Amino acid sequence: MPNILVLNGPNLNLLGAREPLLYGTKTLDQINADLSTQAVALNHQLHCLQSNAEGTLIDAVQKAHPSIAFIIINPGALTHTSIALRDAFLSVDIPFIEVHLSNIYRRESFRHQSYLSDIAIGTIIGLGSQGYHLALQYADHHLSLNRQ
Amino acid sequence: MPNILVLNGPNLNLLGAREPLLYGTKTLDQINADLSTQAVALNHQLHCLQSNAEGTLIDAVQKAHPSIAFIIINPGALTHTSIALRDAFLSVDIPFIEVHLSNIYRRESFRHQSYLSDIAIGTIIGLGSQGYHLALQYADHHLSLNRQ
Amino acid sequence: MPNILVLNGPNLNLLGAREPLLYGTKTLDQINADLSTQAVALNHQLHCLQSNAEGTLIDAVQKAHPSIAFIIINPGALTHTSIALRDAFLSVDIPFIEVHLSNIYRRESFRHQSYLSDIAIGTIIGLGSQGYHLALQYADHHLSLNRQ
Amino acid sequence: MPNILVLNGPNLNLLGAREPLLYGTKTLDQINADLSTQAVALNHQLHCLQSNAEGTLIDAVQKAHPSIAFIIINPGALTHTSIALRDAFLSVDIPFIEVHLSNIYRRESFRHQSYLSDIAIGTIIGLGSQGYHLALQYADHHLSLNRQ
Amino acid sequence: MPNILVLNGPNLNLLGAREPLLYGTKTLDQINADLSTQAVALNHQLHCLQSNAEGTLIDAVQKAHPSIAFIIINPGALTHTSIALRDAFLSVDIPFIEVHLSNIYRRESFRHQSYLSDIAIGTIIGLGSQGYHLALQYADHHLSLNRQ
Amino acid sequence: MPNILVLNGPNLNLLGAREPLLYGTKTLDQINADLSTQAVALNHQLHCLQSNAEGTLIDAVQKAHPSIAFIIINPGALTHTSIALRDAFLSVDIPFIEVHLSNIYRRESFRHQSYLSDIAIGTIIGLGSQGYHLALQYADHHLSLNRQ
Amino acid sequence: MPNILVLNGPNLNLLGAREPLLYGTKTLDQINADLSTQAVALNHQLHCLQSNAEGTLIDAVQKAHPSIAFIIINPGALTHTSIALRDAFLSVDIPFIEVHLSNIYRRESFRHQSYLSDIAIGTIIGLGSQGYHLALQYADHHLSLNRQ
Amino acid sequence: MPNILVLNGPNLNLLGAREPLLYGTKTLDQINADLSTQAVALNHQLHCLQSNAEGTLIDAVQKAHPSIAFIIINPGALTHTSIALRDAFLSVDIPFIEVHLSNIYRRESFRHQSYLSDIAIGTIIGLGSQGYHLALQYADHHLSLNRQ
Amino acid sequence: MPNILVLNGPNLNLLGAREPLLYGTKTLDQINADLSTQAVALNHQLHCLQSNAEGTLIDAVQKAHPSIAFIIINPGALTHTSIALRDAFLSVDIPFIEVHLSNIYRRESFRHQSYLSDIAIGTIIGLGSQGYHLALQYADHHLSLNRQ
Amino acid sequence: MPNILVLNGPNLNLLGAREPLLYGTKTLDQINADLSTQAVALNHQLHCLQSNAEGTLIDAVQKAHPSIAFIIINPGALTHTSIALRDAFLSVDIPFIEVHLSNIYRRESFRHQSYLSDIAIGTIIGLGSQGYHLALQYADHHLSLNRQ
Amino acid sequence: MPNILVLNGPNLNLLGAREPLLYGTKTLDQINADLSTQAVALNHQLHCLQSNAEGTLIDAVQKAHPSIAFIIINPGALTHTSIALRDAFLSVDIPFIEVHLSNIYRRESFRHQSYLSDIAIGTIIGLGSQGYHLALQYADHHLSLNRQ
Amino acid sequence: MPNILVLNGPNLNLLGAREPLLYGTKTLDQINADLSTQAVALNHQLHCLQSNAEGTLIDAVQKAHPSIAFIIINPGALTHTSIALRDAFLSVDIPFIEVHLSNIYRRESFRHQSYLSDIAIGTIIGLGSQGYHLALQYADHHLSLNRQ
Repeated sequence: MPNILVLNGPNLNLLGAREPLLYGTKTLDQINADLSTQAVALNHQLHCLQSNAEGTLIDAVQKAHPSIAFIIINPGALTHTSIALRDAFLSVDIPFIEVHLSNIYRRESFRHQSYLSDIAIGTIIGLGSQGYHLALQYADHHLSLNRQ
Repeated sequence: MPNILVLNGPNLNLLGAREPLLYGTKTLDQINADLSTQAVALNHQLHCLQSNAEGTLIDAVQKAHPSIAFIIINPGALTHTSIALRDAFLSVDIPFIEVHLSNIYRRESFRHQSYLSDIAIGTIIGLGSQGYHLALQYADHHLSLNRQ
Repeated sequence: MPNILVLNGPNLNLLGAREPLLYGTKTLDQINADLSTQAVALNHQLHCLQSNAEGTLIDAVQKAHPSIAFIIINPGALTHTSIALRDAFLSVDIPFIEVHLSNIYRRESFRHQSYLSDIAIGTIIGLGSQGYHLALQYADHHLSLNRQ
Repeated sequence: MPNILVLNGPNLNLLGAREPLLYGTKTLDQINADLSTQAVALNHQLHCLQSNAEGTLIDAVQKAHPSIAFIIINPGALTHTSIALRDAFLSVDIPFIEVHLSNIYRRESFRHQSYLSDIAIGTIIGLGSQGYHLALQYADHHLSLNRQ
Repeated sequence: MPNILVLNGPNLNLLGAREPLLYGTKTLDQINADLSTQAVALNHQLHCLQSNAEGTLIDAVQKAHPSIAFIIINPGALTHTSIALRDAFLSVDIPFIEVHLSNIYRRESFRHQSYLSDIAIGTIIGLGSQGYHLALQYADHHLSLNRQ
Repeated sequence: MPNILVLNGPNLNLLGAREPLLYGTKTLDQINADLSTQAVALNHQLHCLQSNAEGTLIDAVQKAHPSIAFIIINPGALTHTSIALRDAFLSVDIPFIEVHLSNIYRRESFRHQSYLSDIAIGTIIGLGSQGYHLALQYADHHLSLNRQ
Repeated sequence: MPNILVLNGPNLNLLGAREPLLYGTKTLDQINADLSTQAVALNHQLHCLQSNAEGTLIDAVQKAHPSIAFIIINPGALTHTSIALRDAFLSVDIPFIEVHLSNIYRRESFRHQSYLSDIAIGTIIGLGSQGYHLALQYADHHLSLNRQ
Repeated sequence: MPNILVLNGPNLNLLGAREPLLYGTKTLDQINADLSTQAVALNHQLHCLQSNAEGTLIDAVQKAHPSIAFIIINPGALTHTSIALRDAFLSVDIPFIEVHLSNIYRRESFRHQSYLSDIAIGTIIGLGSQGYHLALQYADHHLSLNRQ
Repeated sequence: MPNILVLNGPNLNLLGAREPLLYGTKTLDQINADLSTQAVALNHQLHCLQSNAEGTLIDAVQKAHPSIAFIIINPGALTHTSIALRDAFLSVDIPFIEVHLSNIYRRESFRHQSYLSDIAIGTIIGLGSQGYHLALQYADHHLSLNRQ
Repeated sequence: MPNILVLNGPNLNLLGAREPLLYGTKTLDQINADLSTQAVALNHQLHCLQSNAEGTLIDAVQKAHPSIAFIIINPGALTHTSIALRDAFLSVDIPFIEVHLSNIYRRESFRHQSYLSDIAIGTIIGLGSQGYHLALQYADHHLSLNRQ
Repeated sequence: MPNILVLNGPNLNLLGAREPLLYGTKTLDQINADLSTQAVALNHQLHCLQSNAEGTLIDAVQKAHPSIAFIIINPGALTHTSIALRDAFLSVDIPFIEVHLSNIYRRESFRHQSYLSDIAIGTIIGLGSQGYHLALQYADHHLSLNRQ
Repeated sequence: MPNILVLNGPNLNLLGAREPLLYGTKTLDQINADLSTQAVALNHQLHCLQSNAEGTLIDAVQKAHPSIAFIIINPGALTHTSIALRDAFLSVDIPFIEVHLSNIYRRESFRHQSYLSDIAIGTIIGLGSQGYHLALQYADHHLSLNRQ
């Protein structure tokens, strides 16, 4: 039964195809497969979900309670616009990390502000798909600490 | 046939469970049931809807015309971000009251601004689930005035 | 002996005469009389005061302690300018509701900000003189809860 | 097989009914029919879609690749709030024109900013349903240039 | 019986004594006397009032209705801070001119904004005590127009 | 006798020569000739004027009354700085469209604001010299409507 | 030989014709004639000039030195945009009054700021063509003081 | 005959009772008594005044001239809102120190700005009732310097 | 045949006469004569132009192409207001230096921003008429580099 | 062994020499000597340090722990720019007072903001070298309270 | 010979001692030792440096060229204030990651802005000392990619 | 004995190596040598200093008094962040010119503001190493004027 949820927001289904200079050449399926392999090696099980609809992502966060112990989320453009997604995280109170593939500080100024960062444990920005792997590694560290 | 619509926005399906210090311990179902009882006593009939999806709420506002005479809405986080919901209300021209359970002025500054307040009849803030009951009482007052 | 104080700020003595489209046709005396009737029915007793002078309103808030259990205030223009009135409420620590007759969000932008809202229990905006009645009803609810 | 996509955002399904002084009296169906006639005369074929849901519009933009050569979009209220829609256009890299029926510069200041304008080829504002026809005419011009 | 009211706000009782380089050497009593002479010559009668208390000025504006036909006011520092005084003028709907002795645009930036200017007929700034005389002359012009 | 005026502001006399990537390779004379041909086909007659001097453009707008029925203007840099040109349009009350060749939203932020847009019928941005032709086509549509 | 200069900026040549509700029904020629009559009665002689061109107004201010003793200027839209006109006044150091016919504080916010007010003796706003007459009266007062 | 004036603004009459964690447990009477003792030891005599009314404080500042040589003022909430009090100090030109009991920089951002600080000799913030004693000690130092 | 153009904007024709403490005592004719002498010594030939009219300066910049190899401009007040002058420089693509006689950073804040600086090679500020001479010296350096 | 640390930031080594009208004529050595005398009388011992280098001041604050019981600091220009100095104080958690010799509110606006004030016990501004003496007196008061 | 540089800015020498709730209980020496062990396992060698002085950190960055292939930096408070440190990184052009132990988005707003983030490869925020380890792991990934 | 000081701030020791497109290919040593040659020819003697440490630059400015008659400074990044360096110049009151090699107005917006410009004699921006030579030439001009 999955204990870690990997959420990806709008347009991240196009990873690999979309603007590879900015986001890399791996598809989201490849990234999710690699993450699952890493998770199994760490004795965790992932559930991965991508949606272009804010409501679907909110539903997923709400349903994560109580089985999911940690969430890794790349909210895409909703990072900068969705207070509703923030409220979903406030409701379920599950620790999470915010990941951005590209360096948002090199981009338009409206991408420099996040409605999630201050309620996340932390944020990993600009490290491409490695950002997900490092987040998963931190999740394992975090869960092992709390297990003790 | 319902003549008053009670709309609740994203994450309000978690009422009672979610942050009870902030939002109270009554579930949305309990509140809606209590409101229906109050409505019947005032000779009105409610239709209640909650959704985490902006599009669904817009659809509901659009369909309210022409049968619904008054709307009570707690737009949740969409209060601060949804111009599309504002446009739906502008389109149907049904009188409505905006209700917030918590005192939004004690919270993050991005919650102090609303895209609905200036086109609502009025706003009730911070009075918990009583806010819905007072809004319903006002709706009755408003409809009785206009009936004359 | 009064246990609920109804305060009205500058220019509200002109209610009924002043800009009826914006504020309604009832005079302040009529509203206060109606509120007193409602209060008696709920087993409360009101003291009503209006003043054009900030200092007089501050004095009234200070003297409310310890006999007054709840305050309903329409601060008028002082809503937006008086930190001293805010400090009076901070000093006496009596629960209160802020009421505005007109929808301040449809008016000049300097009326959108309040020095009282974040320290009030809540705010009722735009519902005309009904706003006072709903506030009184909430006061009764609030006091009955705390009596238990 | 359609080569031009006409997208309309939230509440534009109410065209004709909704605020005719602001938006005109033609329904969206009539406008789409007129546009299709114009398209056929220019040897193009349209696909028309309206949705109140941001996610559905994003899906439509994503699926436009690779068959659609040009998009005409009236994003409605999403113009001012949806970075996710912007990202969808950035992903598919299809030339598009942004159309607004009403003169957004005469309206609320939050309607003066667009998340799409700087990545569109251009924008047509305030010319009512004629705006769509002029955009289609430009699309024909643009496609004929690129065909050469 | 007076038909024109001349109001002076906080600290203007010190005219002549206070910062003569900025405000001139005439006392307020001398100015009022000169204005009364001018008024009589124009077949008007003045009532002159100065107060350091906002509430007293609001009372005076309220009481001006219905006997006073025109008000000349130098609100002093209240120009920049008193929404309550603005509301008093909005309530009585008596035409008025705002006068400032010194050139407020050469002074601190917080003196460049007025809560009265947009609801006054007009404003006369920087012309010393002549400003009152010109305002009175305009009042005569205004009243003679409306008498016709 | 001309019934439509085509005005071009500062530096647009250099069209074709100046920054062709941004503004295209057609000279202003060529564009005006093409527009005149299109106008004749639509039974209108153009008068075309370009000036680098704000005063000359204001004079032209003033003199357009009463013979000119529609104005197409590309104000160039004056778009963002000339309130005097705005006032000229307010004075003559002739319907007009604002045209920009380049996509001003991709350029410096001071080019994103216009002193004309909110008093124009509408605006066409970023469509190169086609923008003039579409504007002319709309002018014909507008004048035919009003003729009825 | 004229000792007082009356300058009017862009579009004020249309006074009387242009937006009479805002600016009155007197033409600029009538106003100038009335002002000349008033001047003669006060033993002054006026020179009156209007231009739509900033450069021409700057030339006029420059040439005013040394013969002109006082300037009355209604800079029209240049009030809010012309630092060059400000510099001309700084150069010649002739006392002047800024006059606005309409109440600029009731209009667009960009009309609330002036590049001349802080270097003028004073400003008269909103009093229609009477504003010029009051300014001329003040000029006479000012010059008689300095003659002593 | 008193030569030093100690002024306290709105709500400071509640010192000791009001929010002791923020303002300390000494009443204003105790503080004033202690200050008087200290003053006598330094060969000065105090006059102490507290008011909740801005007008009363302005009157007190005005009347301080010419007998009072130094003023110590804790303006309370008027610090941040009263330009009229500022003007009173500008009028009388008596040296003064501004004292705040609590550290205003730890509180709401609207308490970080003062209309008095730049015209005071100096400011003492956050040192509780000791702040008054240090201010009195400085007053003695200041007056002894000027006596020489 | 001149290869370097020296442009001076509004009010610089008054140099020497105007505010000598700020701008020095040399007239523009003297400065231009001195610059011409320096130019001849460096094997260049100057053309010097001053105008109070923005349009005339724009014309001059446009006509500089292709014969003029370098422009030295003191745009005066147009520095801060003329996007049209900026566009003229963008059109002709001739290297230029912006010179200011006075230290604009000691003056009003609206003089701290320039529409030319970022497209100039560089800027020389506050060095009086020496600024022109240093700019000419740099022009010589720049042209000799490019000649190689 | 010293228990109170007196820190002075950049350029305060020039006290007495530097801008005496602003900062007084006493050198820092004289002030430190006077403070030491006062300290001894109060049974404390001072350590005094001045540096122009932020790093040296941070080192001094870090090393103050645990022997130093109170710090008096005039951070000079670092007040407005050094978050690192703030962090040093946050690290050692030693009570401190911020002193400014001149009245920073009469100076450039960038001097009105401090990175230390909200974490200091309090601030003394504008009282010249007396400010240090009053701070030391408060330190004694503070330490005697905590000793009890 | 070290190929990876680990830099820590002001006050990070107090890690473990300073605010452990915010920064954790490990000392910087322990963290550096753990990082060195990790580095050796990955076939890298670290050089670790901490300084409270901006100049020393700039020197270190400058000297990193050409031997150091990757930098991991926690700039502490300099993140938000040091453009000079940014320029050092711009000069040497060595890839680097910015690490923050605490979640800077939960802290004072001046900590939300970084002068380094947009020129870093990426940023890791809020993950405690794990942030350094993840950064080192990414550095290994980055260097192995570039080695190929 | 040197009478002119040439100061260079952080990272300017890397000139020639660092970003040559932006800053040129000459090293700082070459520039200083060339400046010394120019100085000798003008009968001056230079002292040249570069530092990455703000404190060292402040020390140098302080010690320049009284022997140094003129300072040429390129403060590098400290231009935009160091109020302490500003205070050092205010203390010693030595005339100075601020030089920037690159055109700071084409770069990040935080480089458009300087803490030195308004207290410098003037500023030379964007002219590469020639900027130093022109500054030295001006220094000679300035000193010869003051010698007379």
